[in-house]
Amino acid sequence: MERQSGKKIFGGIAIGNILFYTKQSNQVVRRKIEDTDAEIKRYEAAKKEAIRQLEELAEMAVKEVGEVNAQIFEVHAMMLEDGDYNESVHNYITSQKVNAEYAVASTGDNFASVFANMEDEYFKARSADMKDISERVIAVLSGRKAESELPDEPVIIAAEDLAPSETVQMDKSRVLAFVTELGSANSHTAILARTMGIPAVTGVKIKESWNGKLAIVDGYQGELIVEPDKAVLEEYQKLQKQDKEQKELLQTLKGKENVTLSGQKIKLYANIGNIADLAAVLQNDAGGIGLFRSEFLYLEKDTFPTEEEQFSVYRQVAETMAGKPVIIRTLDIGADKQADYFHLEPEENPAMGYRAIRICLTRKDIFKTQLRAIYRASSYGSIAVMYPMITSVQEVKEIKEVAEEVKAELDADHIPYKNIEQGIMVETPAAAVLSDLLAEEVDFFSIGTNDLTQYTLAIDRQNTNLDKFYDPHSPAVLRLIELIVKNAHQAGIWVGICGELGADMTLTKQFLQMGVDELSVAAGCILPIRKIIRETK
Amino acid sequence: MERQSGKKIFGGIAIGNILFYTKQSNQVVRRKIEDTDAEIKRYEAAKKEAIRQLEELAEMAVKEVGEVNAQIFEVHAMMLEDGDYNESVHNYITSQKVNAEYAVASTGDNFASVFANMEDEYFKARSADMKDISERVIAVLSGRKAESELPDEPVIIAAEDLAPSETVQMDKSRVLAFVTELGSANSHTAILARTMGIPAVTGVKIKESWNGKLAIVDGYQGELIVEPDKAVLEEYQKLQKQDKEQKELLQTLKGKENVTLSGQKIKLYANIGNIADLAAVLQNDAGGIGLFRSEFLYLEKDTFPTEEEQFSVYRQVAETMAGKPVIIRTLDIGADKQADYFHLEPEENPAMGYRAIRICLTRKDIFKTQLRAIYRASSYGSIAVMYPMITSVQEVKEIKEVAEEVKAELDADHIPYKNIEQGIMVETPAAAVLSDLLAEEVDFFSIGTNDLTQYTLAIDRQNTNLDKFYDPHSPAVLRLIELIVKNAHQAGIWVGICGELGADMTLTKQFLQMGVDELSVAAGCILPIRKIIRETK
Repeated sequence: MERQSGKKIFGGIAIGNILFYTKQSNQVVRRKIEDTDAEIKRYEAAKKEAIRQLEELAEMAVKEVGEVNAQIFEVHAMMLEDGDYNESVHNYITSQKVNAEYAVASTGDNFASVFANMEDEYFKARSADMKDISERVIAVLSGRKAESELPDEPVIIAAEDLAPSETVQMDKSRVLAFVTELGSANSHTAILARTMGIPAVTGVKIKESWNGKLAIVDGYQGELIVEPDKAVLEEYQKLQKQDKEQKELLQTLKGKENVTLSGQKIKLYANIGNIADLAAVLQNDAGGIGLFRSEFLYLEKDTFPTEEEQFSVYRQVAETMAGKPVIIRTLDIGADKQADYFHLEPEENPAMGYRAIRICLTRKDIFKTQLRAIYRASSYGSIAVMYPMITSVQEVKEIKEVAEEVKAELDADHIPYKNIEQGIMVETPAAAVLSDLLAEEVDFFSIGTNDLTQYTLAIDRQNTNLDKFYDPHSPAVLRLIELIVKNAHQAGIWVGICGELGADMTLTKQFLQMGVDELSVAAGCILPIRKIIRETK
Repeated sequence: MERQSGKKIFGGIAIGNILFYTKQSNQVVRRKIEDTDAEIKRYEAAKKEAIRQLEELAEMAVKEVGEVNAQIFEVHAMMLEDGDYNESVHNYITSQKVNAEYAVASTGDNFASVFANMEDEYFKARSADMKDISERVIAVLSGRKAESELPDEPVIIAAEDLAPSETVQMDKSRVLAFVTELGSANSHTAILARTMGIPAVTGVKIKESWNGKLAIVDGYQGELIVEPDKAVLEEYQKLQKQDKEQKELLQTLKGKENVTLSGQKIKLYANIGNIADLAAVLQNDAGGIGLFRSEFLYLEKDTFPTEEEQFSVYRQVAETMAGKPVIIRTLDIGADKQADYFHLEPEENPAMGYRAIRICLTRKDIFKTQLRAIYRASSYGSIAVMYPMITSVQEVKEIKEVAEEVKAELDADHIPYKNIEQGIMVETPAAAVLSDLLAEEVDFFSIGTNDLTQYTLAIDRQNTNLDKFYDPHSPAVLRLIELIVKNAHQAGIWVGICGELGADMTLTKQFLQMGVDELSVAAGCILPIRKIIRETK
């Protein structure tokens, strides 16, 4: 028995044989040719077929991982149409009088290495794409199939890495689990695993010798067990059965209303921290996005994201959600989320420091860029915006002035936008205590229970020395939530909860009683909470 | 004109000539003597006279700096009676056949250097005392006066350092200000300056060449200006006049009640952070001590203060206050107050970290030692105890159990104590929100507005980058204070304010309206606040 720990990508238990998966390598032979025109025609035909395949893959992918994540194949198709790429291939053929396979392989290698040396993470990732599309064209030229054939018996796929095109082409009914060495939590394989509900673990050192051996993948713990002992195997067989029953039960809740037995309804939205989470949002039947943490746009980069970059992401999310609400929280950089180019000074108590709206209100250029991008994207769906770390009415008034300036600028530029809802995070005790006054200023509240709890108790929630004193169900916090809900409703605005308490199923009933209008939780919690709601009297 | 900045010890403006003050040095000549018995008698007589002088000084000092701070002279007298000291002097005389002056000087030097090399700060400070008492005996033996004669015209005393005996012996009516190079904020000179209302600045590099020159001491800014320009001089003469009028006005308020024009009364107590502050408490006519910060007992030491050490301090304070209330806050170590021997781990957000009652409830040995000392001292005056950083009813119940254990132990040891009032600091938003429930558990509340404000606003009050967002008069905090007062009174307990807001004179009227029972402030703020109260309708 061999046990290895990795990073958990998607929970679930898989038991089966390992398929050690390696890329089909396209052996390319350099051949001299005479008729360069004919060779160029051969290349163009192969390229056309490759693009057709990619479009087919895109269609398959939309069904499996959703429109956003399927776009990678459209991008691949576009890359094959790229002028520089094609010019390079043509050049190889005409000037060196070589075969199309060799011209494509050389071009692919060159472009891939140029991308690999770029600083920007986005372009770095394009290096693998370059190789992927070139191999596809070579496969067509060589008359080989680019598809990944899997055995009839379902297997655990173990691979160093998996390209998007590889995972998409696999017959997922034959995949029990993915175990990879490379690939982050936001890789295409990870997204696919989460969306398709396939247990997955990454960060495991894969061995070819495992091929064909019986193994267990524990996606909850992030573990791979090869050749398990009898006792371990039996234990996992039992766990797998329970897990399956639970998942099946939840699947029956898709498309159902979030309504109690007595008819009280509540909205169940999802929190997302990255565009890659969108697929899970759709798969888990969320009614909208209750908390779009926009920080990732800033944390992923080495400099401030431009208005265009932000706009394109917000628009994509709005369009993907197709009319369902998308509540974007403006940046909450600072505290434990640092980006070097903000040049924030070290602080004694960063959690009570220069962060979130405090940055936005002192560096309004950053704030206005984000607001412009959000307002521009508002035309493409049902977007709302909310502001973090509010402590006074004055701050909200100042924010609204900035929003008005942004709208006036868009008007002047004849750029369309909607008069979207503006809300605030209620996550400081000050905002809770002043919620009656704040409710007069905004369209909705979203209660951030993590911060609200830590400030109310004056306990850093990441300090493990204080577990004895940190009561996540502190009556002080629950009283504040009740007060916030009451004040919101008295002013006629809606109120949601987007912190961890929102997903705390021991409190769901209490929140229903308080009259909370919305809970925004991790996508995976939506169906379990729906179940509780539907069982509540 | 020469301007030097130092550390402000006591506010006030002085204008006058500088007296460069140096220690009278007792030149001691080593002489051989024959009759050692006669020489020992000479020494004993001189010692007796020195002790008489010290007792006289002690009496003078009681009037000037209060009983606690006058004790230094009683300590000096005791040191002169010390067996080891006297044995050493006798030995020098009999074995070396030298004169008493030389025997005392040598003994004094030896003992001083032994003390100077000790690690403990308390014993280190005894080194200067050793020299001081030896010089007094030598002065008597030499027939010189030990007193410091000052010129008839009042002067600004500029000295490298001033011994307690030097400052006490000065005719303070001839002292305009003290400017020293050495000496901390808690030195005897500093205490005397504060108690007698003499402007004082320390940390200024003193020059002998200043002797006789006109100078300005600005005790508010901690500045010394030697040979000021005409314009500067005129400006300071104006400031001095205003300052004097204000101080005289306040003196008329001593002994008066804290009562509004409509008859509402409020208690005005003082905060102290060290036993040295006691004199100012009495001089400023405080009704009691509303916040005795017991941390200094821990911060001054290299190891945990013993029960005896603490007991003797609490008893001294209780006795000095002679029946007036003394509210001792149990230790608030942690955050920005660190003592190495607690071995606290570095924290990401120390202000929301392992501190105060959180240490006491996890390391109950430390807590019980302090509580035993407090309960033992309760027999000697009117002591109460209060606990910092409370966030739940559960914590208070646990504290009360510890207090019961301590009382049971004292009963078993037949040690008398009073059933003193137990209160809590209300300084977390949680405690404020739960103040109705907490009021059922304790005898009084003391609102710590500094921490309450920083947690409510989620703003580290020491972070200067956040000044734009830090509203010390946040309506959220004022609402919480109002809630706390209401809940306290509903449960029939009294409630005070001991944070900075308590001394904020723009809020005094509002606190009176809320019905706050007590304000505990820096001693220097008591008379100005009394003035406001007496002018309030």
